[in-house]
Amino acid sequence: VGESVTGRVLGVLAAFTADRPELTLTEISRRAGLPLTTAHRIVGELTAWGALERVAGRYRIGLRLWEVGALAPRGLGLRESAMPFLEDLYEVTRQNVQLAVLDGTDAVYLERISGRGAVNVITRVGGRLPLHATGVGLVLLAHAPAELQERVLAGPLRRYTPKTRCDPGELRRVLAEVRRTGVAVTDGQIELVALSVAAPVFGQRGEVAAALSVVVPAEGTDPRAYVPAVRAAARAISRALGAPERFRSSEGRLTSHDPARMLGR
Amino acid sequence: VGESVTGRVLGVLAAFTADRPELTLTEISRRAGLPLTTAHRIVGELTAWGALERVAGRYRIGLRLWEVGALAPRGLGLRESAMPFLEDLYEVTRQNVQLAVLDGTDAVYLERISGRGAVNVITRVGGRLPLHATGVGLVLLAHAPAELQERVLAGPLRRYTPKTRCDPGELRRVLAEVRRTGVAVTDGQIELVALSVAAPVFGQRGEVAAALSVVVPAEGTDPRAYVPAVRAAARAISRALGAPERFRSSEGRLTSHDPARMLGR
Repeated sequence: VGESVTGRVLGVLAAFTADRPELTLTEISRRAGLPLTTAHRIVGELTAWGALERVAGRYRIGLRLWEVGALAPRGLGLRESAMPFLEDLYEVTRQNVQLAVLDGTDAVYLERISGRGAVNVITRVGGRLPLHATGVGLVLLAHAPAELQERVLAGPLRRYTPKTRCDPGELRRVLAEVRRTGVAVTDGQIELVALSVAAPVFGQRGEVAAALSVVVPAEGTDPRAYVPAVRAAARAISRALGAPERFRSSEGRLTSHDPARMLGR
Repeated sequence: VGESVTGRVLGVLAAFTADRPELTLTEISRRAGLPLTTAHRIVGELTAWGALERVAGRYRIGLRLWEVGALAPRGLGLRESAMPFLEDLYEVTRQNVQLAVLDGTDAVYLERISGRGAVNVITRVGGRLPLHATGVGLVLLAHAPAELQERVLAGPLRRYTPKTRCDPGELRRVLAEVRRTGVAVTDGQIELVALSVAAPVFGQRGEVAAALSVVVPAEGTDPRAYVPAVRAAARAISRALGAPERFRSSEGRLTSHDPARMLGR
């Protein structure tokens, strides 16, 4: 892709990241690996169209590209269907409620609703985190093709905290448990202070379309208190997406498993 | 722009709209005005990169473009700062809470939180509505450069309902009132059943960065009940954006104006 003009246009867009959302023309040219004159021409056309905006000599992603991106069915479309149920879940927990989808070997966060007093989380709407270390990631990975599971488990598996599970054998057992119970309960995987309860959201063809989680303070939390609310919300979103009835719930029943066991407590 | 390769790439992206979010290659080629072979090549490269996704022979905007779009400071960035206060406003109203920015002669909706029992609104995240007919639009227009105001008032001014204000003279009076009171109160402009209370959100340089509104049922609503909450939320978001103190509130005070007069009741 890199050699064609289309590839160069995409290279200019990819130069912008969450860490570097505003760039000078020189920075764009360097990050995209393009001669300054080429970068200048492409940036000019992108700015005229509204894909980029220029403010005080620096460029940033423009509102028009945000609008086009908002048409992605797996972006705002899915989020729109899920939003009322995410709101409900937020109301009863007042912590962090998150919705994520699988992309490559990452969980991409479509939505995060956080209370002002909620435990701090590092996720960002439009951001990515690895599958092995997050509740939503484990749910997505548990239902992913075996080939993807093997690729992820083959590593590298980043250690965020002393509690982060990085052992492929242990992760394999956790994934089986997630499939069996229909819920992932993890604590201290990304930050020691946070505990996550996550469940799968099913789409029209019965595929796992997304994963939903609440992230709450690990200290003094009994995850069992959150499991029914998370599973009920995931069911409701699955229904809104048109999932066949048999896919709306995993095999596990609310009473048939013990989140404390999943945490290794 | 249309003649260059960059222009063709943007033309392919612009072929997708909210009404037509999924397209065949033939449809893309027709809507972008490109020969089928050219469209085929560009679509292939966009799909390989993730800007488009192919599902069952049709193309749609891909998650990677959504991610890049999410970097737009006027898109999710602004939304992220505003979200906790939009949540607060939603909690106390349980209706529709909306955040919009000015783009060209439209209001572009960055966020909408709607209760399940809320009055129906036609807005959509990433969607546009004209400035003269919406509460957020009147706020944005009231603080826009005179040149833009004249351009909008020169029309065409679409009539959505018998109540939609389409008279330039009347709209000029309303805009002055919005500037004076710091709030726009409109009813039945887009749909007869809905009433909107909107206020400006100020940015770092004291500019109007966005507008915030609640949309509630027109029937039996006293808009005065919503004005303080909307203005307080707009102030809080302005503070979060780093607005200078003197810009956080317009001249009007809560007690100094009468929303009923703005409605012409």
